[in-house]
Amino acid sequence: MKYVKSILLAGFVATSLSTFAYGQSFGRRDVSDESAECLSCHKKQNPVIYQQWGESKHFRANISCFECHAADRADKDAMNHYGNTIAVLVTPKDCAKCHSKEVEEFAGSHHSKAGRILGSLDNRLAEVVEGNHSFVTPGFPEGNSAAAVNGCWQCHGSEIKVLPDGTLDPATYPNSGIGRINPDGSEGSCNACHTRHSFSVAQARHPDTCGKCHLGPDHPQKEIYEESKHGILFFANEDQMNLHNEKWIVGEDYWAAPTCATCHMSQTKNQPVTHDVGMRISWNNRPPVSIRPEISDAKMGLPGADVPWQVRRQNMIDVCLNCHNKNWVDNFYVQYDGLIELYNNKFAKPAGALYALAKPLKAVAEPFTAPIDWSYWELWHHEGRRARHGASMMAPDYTHWHGTYDVAKTFYTHIVPELKEMIEEAEHSDDPAKVEAGEKLAAKLDEVLNSDDHKWFIGKMDDGEKEARKKAATDFKKRYDK
Amino acid sequence: MKYVKSILLAGFVATSLSTFAYGQSFGRRDVSDESAECLSCHKKQNPVIYQQWGESKHFRANISCFECHAADRADKDAMNHYGNTIAVLVTPKDCAKCHSKEVEEFAGSHHSKAGRILGSLDNRLAEVVEGNHSFVTPGFPEGNSAAAVNGCWQCHGSEIKVLPDGTLDPATYPNSGIGRINPDGSEGSCNACHTRHSFSVAQARHPDTCGKCHLGPDHPQKEIYEESKHGILFFANEDQMNLHNEKWIVGEDYWAAPTCATCHMSQTKNQPVTHDVGMRISWNNRPPVSIRPEISDAKMGLPGADVPWQVRRQNMIDVCLNCHNKNWVDNFYVQYDGLIELYNNKFAKPAGALYALAKPLKAVAEPFTAPIDWSYWELWHHEGRRARHGASMMAPDYTHWHGTYDVAKTFYTHIVPELKEMIEEAEHSDDPAKVEAGEKLAAKLDEVLNSDDHKWFIGKMDDGEKEARKKAATDFKKRYDK
Amino acid sequence: MKYVKSILLAGFVATSLSTFAYGQSFGRRDVSDESAECLSCHKKQNPVIYQQWGESKHFRANISCFECHAADRADKDAMNHYGNTIAVLVTPKDCAKCHSKEVEEFAGSHHSKAGRILGSLDNRLAEVVEGNHSFVTPGFPEGNSAAAVNGCWQCHGSEIKVLPDGTLDPATYPNSGIGRINPDGSEGSCNACHTRHSFSVAQARHPDTCGKCHLGPDHPQKEIYEESKHGILFFANEDQMNLHNEKWIVGEDYWAAPTCATCHMSQTKNQPVTHDVGMRISWNNRPPVSIRPEISDAKMGLPGADVPWQVRRQNMIDVCLNCHNKNWVDNFYVQYDGLIELYNNKFAKPAGALYALAKPLKAVAEPFTAPIDWSYWELWHHEGRRARHGASMMAPDYTHWHGTYDVAKTFYTHIVPELKEMIEEAEHSDDPAKVEAGEKLAAKLDEVLNSDDHKWFIGKMDDGEKEARKKAATDFKKRYDK
Repeated sequence: MKYVKSILLAGFVATSLSTFAYGQSFGRRDVSDESAECLSCHKKQNPVIYQQWGESKHFRANISCFECHAADRADKDAMNHYGNTIAVLVTPKDCAKCHSKEVEEFAGSHHSKAGRILGSLDNRLAEVVEGNHSFVTPGFPEGNSAAAVNGCWQCHGSEIKVLPDGTLDPATYPNSGIGRINPDGSEGSCNACHTRHSFSVAQARHPDTCGKCHLGPDHPQKEIYEESKHGILFFANEDQMNLHNEKWIVGEDYWAAPTCATCHMSQTKNQPVTHDVGMRISWNNRPPVSIRPEISDAKMGLPGADVPWQVRRQNMIDVCLNCHNKNWVDNFYVQYDGLIELYNNKFAKPAGALYALAKPLKAVAEPFTAPIDWSYWELWHHEGRRARHGASMMAPDYTHWHGTYDVAKTFYTHIVPELKEMIEEAEHSDDPAKVEAGEKLAAKLDEVLNSDDHKWFIGKMDDGEKEARKKAATDFKKRYDK
Repeated sequence: MKYVKSILLAGFVATSLSTFAYGQSFGRRDVSDESAECLSCHKKQNPVIYQQWGESKHFRANISCFECHAADRADKDAMNHYGNTIAVLVTPKDCAKCHSKEVEEFAGSHHSKAGRILGSLDNRLAEVVEGNHSFVTPGFPEGNSAAAVNGCWQCHGSEIKVLPDGTLDPATYPNSGIGRINPDGSEGSCNACHTRHSFSVAQARHPDTCGKCHLGPDHPQKEIYEESKHGILFFANEDQMNLHNEKWIVGEDYWAAPTCATCHMSQTKNQPVTHDVGMRISWNNRPPVSIRPEISDAKMGLPGADVPWQVRRQNMIDVCLNCHNKNWVDNFYVQYDGLIELYNNKFAKPAGALYALAKPLKAVAEPFTAPIDWSYWELWHHEGRRARHGASMMAPDYTHWHGTYDVAKTFYTHIVPELKEMIEEAEHSDDPAKVEAGEKLAAKLDEVLNSDDHKWFIGKMDDGEKEARKKAATDFKKRYDK
Repeated sequence: MKYVKSILLAGFVATSLSTFAYGQSFGRRDVSDESAECLSCHKKQNPVIYQQWGESKHFRANISCFECHAADRADKDAMNHYGNTIAVLVTPKDCAKCHSKEVEEFAGSHHSKAGRILGSLDNRLAEVVEGNHSFVTPGFPEGNSAAAVNGCWQCHGSEIKVLPDGTLDPATYPNSGIGRINPDGSEGSCNACHTRHSFSVAQARHPDTCGKCHLGPDHPQKEIYEESKHGILFFANEDQMNLHNEKWIVGEDYWAAPTCATCHMSQTKNQPVTHDVGMRISWNNRPPVSIRPEISDAKMGLPGADVPWQVRRQNMIDVCLNCHNKNWVDNFYVQYDGLIELYNNKFAKPAGALYALAKPLKAVAEPFTAPIDWSYWELWHHEGRRARHGASMMAPDYTHWHGTYDVAKTFYTHIVPELKEMIEEAEHSDDPAKVEAGEKLAAKLDEVLNSDDHKWFIGKMDDGEKEARKKAATDFKKRYDK
């Protein structure tokens, strides 16, 4: 027993001595006086905030409450809080005091512009179709839509309104939407991903963090990732991901799986980390018909206007090659591009053209008043995106069953019959303009349904193909069916 | 090498000595004789039960098989099992022998009444619409619906039927539904959450456990939690949650994230743990129109009838404040209440009134025979709940895309056209009662569609708003669209 | 301090000595010369492959790049790669060099035949309905459907096409579908489950791995498992699952939860591990009406034709008994069988008969041209499977809300009205064949709707049942409703 005790004692002494060697006494000696004041109350009132900060890198760097929440008296949202001038919101402008490179990259990204949704159809849905003006707050006597406040704004970001007493209007806060428009003019919310007071890089690297917003019927990237081999490997091997490591280079610091960050943001042997998430993406699959990202960057006045998709694809290929060989990667892109072209040409373009011709035939001009409004919307905004996003990450169930299957079903069982009904109504109209519009729509529908892509639907499949398929079906039944 | 060996030896000796010091020999000396008999067979036959018990707190407390499964000869489900009188079911009454406080709290909760579903529309669906009487078992010669047995009853609980030989009827068991009605008259099933023979408190604190029942189209609390910041933080930091700790006070024993239990049941600095899950909830979002929980508690004869929603909200705010400041929490509740009011007033109340007026026009009076039956049902029971539950936990995708978007779509593209069709049919009816009912419905529909909330749908949006929206849309297109 | 140092030194020396004792110098001395060449480049170019192999069991067994990728010059996909003859694909035939038992079992399973989908309705959907011939690659000048390539084939497997230069056609590769048809004639892809270069058995035992393909609207086994008690226990106790252990016997090496592998493949005290996943399954729930697995095995020429469902059920019961008692298990199967019978008899058989009679009334004979095509398809292929799979694993939400509820809704609100419309159209047809077919369909529909299962829908519920239900509903309202 004697030896054991000696060793343990020796250990304690050594530790103690080395502590003294640094000349420190106990406690958080270096916290600023202002922060020490904050801590004295909030430690008791909101212990989780205190503890999360205590495990963050900010703790050891003596970045505490006041260092981030300090405000200038001239700031719109500055408030006097027990003698100190502070603000509740910590904006990208505040974070940039130390993290200027990250904030600059972020400011150039689509993410930072997510709050500019006003006027979009999503926005109209939440404000008019689902909502009304009944959500009245001090800052908005004419009211907002509670569907927008609790829905859209929570991901896209609100335009923060400061009330005369310095507090934030409840329609606009709580809000950590990634494109939040802050009182200081900055756009964004760093804590959308670096959540709350631990500011954890590991948390930001975790796919669930991105899944806060990138999920659901209209952009299910989270579900797609989870279905893909990438997600399967991640969730089974999370403990090998080294997520807390400062340096986080794929193939060097971890190799179990890639997360969203790995492919879209993080460091490789050849590329630095970036907070502009669009720099490795070669298709923008947001609009009805997929376009190249430099086109949409140009429309939004972003610096990415000068970065063509080919460069971005090379950036992504550089990531892929850490795990896959060159042929594999090239072939993958052939498959992915093929799916985009199929969706664009067979469904998105004809459906868009037909919808445009159908609009003059609607009883009420407003969007979302006729069945065709809803059908076309879901075709591209929901189902078409699911197909395209699914293919981009090799998630076959999303590509097919939640994607092209739903696109085809909506096209053939909703859009086509709805158009036929509108055409028939127009035929019997007293309004010659409607009769003419109906004829134009009928001609276009006829053209679409007789095209090679769609003629099977009206019973005009080529005889050769018909025979081949009949044979295949017979063979299959022999093999497989009851 | 000598020192190393010495130390290792010293360690072994010390351990052995201290064991002897307690005067124990090897083996489970203190297991009751009856339990020892049980173990002698079941250890071999069902080794997992043996091992799970072996890792439970019951093991060290010498609570083994017989201590829980012992029965009185007078018990309906008592059976002679190799000389011992036992029962398969361990009910809340059995658990209350040691855990009386927990059982009492549970007995006062909605959870314990979940088996009283008989007569509800959910139940009618499973028994009549989806089911039939063909599931005949010894205890039910006239049959049950297999859809109810495999569906509803598995969460809500069955009414256990003991067969003459003491075994349990297969229609009613296996069943661990939380509101199970037991042969001893007690309601509930503790192992619904404290699963099987490990009886783990960590398991009961895990959100997936609640998700066994709280998921799916009609009450997707699991999906909502997973989408919320709370769930994102939990799943990324599960190893820091200290879930196995006896004392589990938020902000003191853990701070990475809250689980379902944290907010609804577990201890805070100021509140004890409770097994009555409704005591921190300020809206009951179950019915078509949200009501206050004390109202529904009164209808069910629960003690919560005396606890107004304001008290419950204060209970929840006490939890929130561990992580959020007071303004944040107050503002959150403004947002949440706003969404409830929007849903209640714009959709739930008008749709309910219209549906009531439409009923006399149905061809068959039974529920779920007309399209309007299904549409109104899904509006409130599925979609309306998703919107309300989504807002309650800040999950914007569920609030909006699975919630208010679906509510609005069902209202405008299903309910309104279905009502119009019923009105038109009534106009041409030979039955003067139907003609009159049709006129009443038409008048109400007219009133609803001309109200401020819905007039946009019939092309009567105010000119000012129309202009503002047109401008916003044009600006948006410039910024963002193809 | 002296003792500590001595011990540490002693430790190092001991380790070093024992290393020398085996006579090894540093480095991977035993890697073959060919593999060493591979590694020299790929270690730098694709570091993740190198690292994953480095953590695999293959590393210690000196099974490196060339040992698996070596090819014979006569192989269709052989290529000269810096002087070595190799192939990109490693097929079951290659793996069988060491793992012959596993490959043989796999070859006898449904899994290995998943690529034989050609001619099925799923396939027609992807090729004709959703797709076209526009995906042209070097190996397919007449084109494929990008929906099939990115969708079906990714799970079912492609038929690999080798191009004249030895590379693989991008329509057919990347592909790790479990029924891939390889250039060497073998069927399957071991890395569908033993993912990439770590070949991890732990990964293959993880339920997410199976969920790559077994998910989504048509066979949501992943979602069902996650909802079941089995999945809930697994995800909360993953660290106790001992997934990396060589020997992995339930009840002996782990007891926290079962995974997919536990029940369908892995070792029990009494059964060996098997790679034929169908040997413990007593219903094949794939077809419109559930059948016994030996029937479908016979159609596919599989050895399972000789293994009746009763034997397979006993195999599964042997697994169940590790955690559940005999009565529990027997009762579970009564419940499960009851749900299958309900679905088969109330919905699947009548709907199938009605659909067959409706086909002659369609305007275009091709599948997926009439609404009834889509409705009947989703009834059995999506919703009916969800109900049946849900019951098989005790996931009540899937059984009911995603299952029998959706089945009933489709039957009563889609199929019945669509049939009525077809009947009415046929009545007014000039074609006597159509008139006759319409009469036959009408008679059958009349028979179905007047049967005990469906007569409630046309207002013919028995008076006794009507009264009982009315009373139950009144009582329920008193208890529970607003």
